[in-house]
Amino acid sequence: MNLDCIPCFQRQALESLRMNTQDEKLQERVLRKVIEALIKADWTSTPLELANKVHKIVREETGIQDPYKKIKKMYNDIALNLYPKIKQKINESSNPLNTAIRIAIAGNIIDFGPKSKGKFDVEKTIEDILNKEFAIDNYEIFKEKIKKARSLLYFVDNTGEIVFDKLLIETILKFHEKMGINQDLKITLVVKGGPVINDATLEDAKYIGMDKIPNVEFRVTTNGDPNSGPSLNSKEVKSWIKNHDITIAKGQASYEGLSQFNDVFFMLIAKCRVIASDLGVKEGDIVLKYM
Amino acid sequence: MNLDCIPCFQRQALESLRMNTQDEKLQERVLRKVIEALIKADWTSTPLELANKVHKIVREETGIQDPYKKIKKMYNDIALNLYPKIKQKINESSNPLNTAIRIAIAGNIIDFGPKSKGKFDVEKTIEDILNKEFAIDNYEIFKEKIKKARSLLYFVDNTGEIVFDKLLIETILKFHEKMGINQDLKITLVVKGGPVINDATLEDAKYIGMDKIPNVEFRVTTNGDPNSGPSLNSKEVKSWIKNHDITIAKGQASYEGLSQFNDVFFMLIAKCRVIASDLGVKEGDIVLKYM
Repeated sequence: MNLDCIPCFQRQALESLRMNTQDEKLQERVLRKVIEALIKADWTSTPLELANKVHKIVREETGIQDPYKKIKKMYNDIALNLYPKIKQKINESSNPLNTAIRIAIAGNIIDFGPKSKGKFDVEKTIEDILNKEFAIDNYEIFKEKIKKARSLLYFVDNTGEIVFDKLLIETILKFHEKMGINQDLKITLVVKGGPVINDATLEDAKYIGMDKIPNVEFRVTTNGDPNSGPSLNSKEVKSWIKNHDITIAKGQASYEGLSQFNDVFFMLIAKCRVIASDLGVKEGDIVLKYM
Repeated sequence: MNLDCIPCFQRQALESLRMNTQDEKLQERVLRKVIEALIKADWTSTPLELANKVHKIVREETGIQDPYKKIKKMYNDIALNLYPKIKQKINESSNPLNTAIRIAIAGNIIDFGPKSKGKFDVEKTIEDILNKEFAIDNYEIFKEKIKKARSLLYFVDNTGEIVFDKLLIETILKFHEKMGINQDLKITLVVKGGPVINDATLEDAKYIGMDKIPNVEFRVTTNGDPNSGPSLNSKEVKSWIKNHDITIAKGQASYEGLSQFNDVFFMLIAKCRVIASDLGVKEGDIVLKYM
């Protein structure tokens, strides 16, 4: 946890409140509850734990169980509409695998958590990132590992973004085909257990057709409710990583939760000072980091 | 006051703390004090009052009386270095008065208050704003009023920015000369009474040579200490406006403090949602508004 997270969580709570109510009295009451909870909270908790606490207060106080429901569908639909055009762009590229990785990272811009301004220009982000240098670039290691892999564990991050994750997975399958690698790739997709911010849940993954990927199975980690699954930093999740040939983890939250484990490819946009400085990169940088 | 201001003040406090201490224990202690003061404060106060309260806590708890001292000098020096080049740009322009206004507005980017990222690319902002449409453009009214004016009241905003304010004033004097207007323009510059964020004080104004402007006198308004001068929204300041032919007010804080008065030209970049929505413009828009 970094001190920056404290005002950032309050900003997130306000953004979430405004999506669902114009009642300024209610907004103020909930913001005050959030601040009081933060001041009492243990600031050595992880950012994820504190964020979940904050968003739980918003859900409980407003009575709205999924404050980002509309916005999640909206960005899933925006991304689905872009799908054919982006797929063609990948297929026509000189290095489809690298292009698909860049696009999956660009999709990570759709995040109502850190530094959110409440809207994202997905197409512009894709164009920018196709021409951007990686601040950390472990693509060559990725390419070699993915060639040999027979099982892929893939931690998704946000709705909308998952459409580009699906494209990356499809591109990996084509890459195997093109390389003449005669093997089925077993794919395990890890989604979130509950509606926190615009985290992708099983429902979102199915909505955009991730269940149609060949040889796919789903697992769920918690983002609040401990009954919904293990937390990212649990022994159970560690064993998942160990039992797969290759692991991809999308986004800042995955990095926060999994960076103590080995043998994971983190793909993300560094969206806030806290994560950027931990990675030794600048805000806005794109990262493909193997650790 | 808008609810957005509450997390924003905390972020400002953190930025200010980090400029002066690496001691994370101290940073946390001061942030907690700031949050406790905010939760107890009257949220119907003006943003200026609350911001001043927050920055006072930072000064008192750290014992540092002017946390932005170095950064203020730095941006004054950056702007002074740009001065000859920018002056030439104004002189060579087809409409020097309009260009000088745009540049003075561009200087308003140097603001460690709202949405600060701790650094500003002044030259790039100038280039952008020279080619940007005003979201509110009362330039024609300004031009007619300034022609007839024999006295100008000018509320400055931030250090660094004041170098471009000086250029605007020099351009206004040349404009009078070129128009053959045979009159001395009396100039009253209003600075801030204390070192709050990077607000320009009398010391800063003198440092960049504002006291060398012909027929200039200075007045001081408070930005915290009530003994340092009247507040922007006081009757006294209202009478200053009444007793001058034309008034220019730079920046968001001037708009917050003076927008209930008539006959003022506000020149600013809309830097946060709160001010942008009050003006009916978008974040990042530039404004020359007469009201």
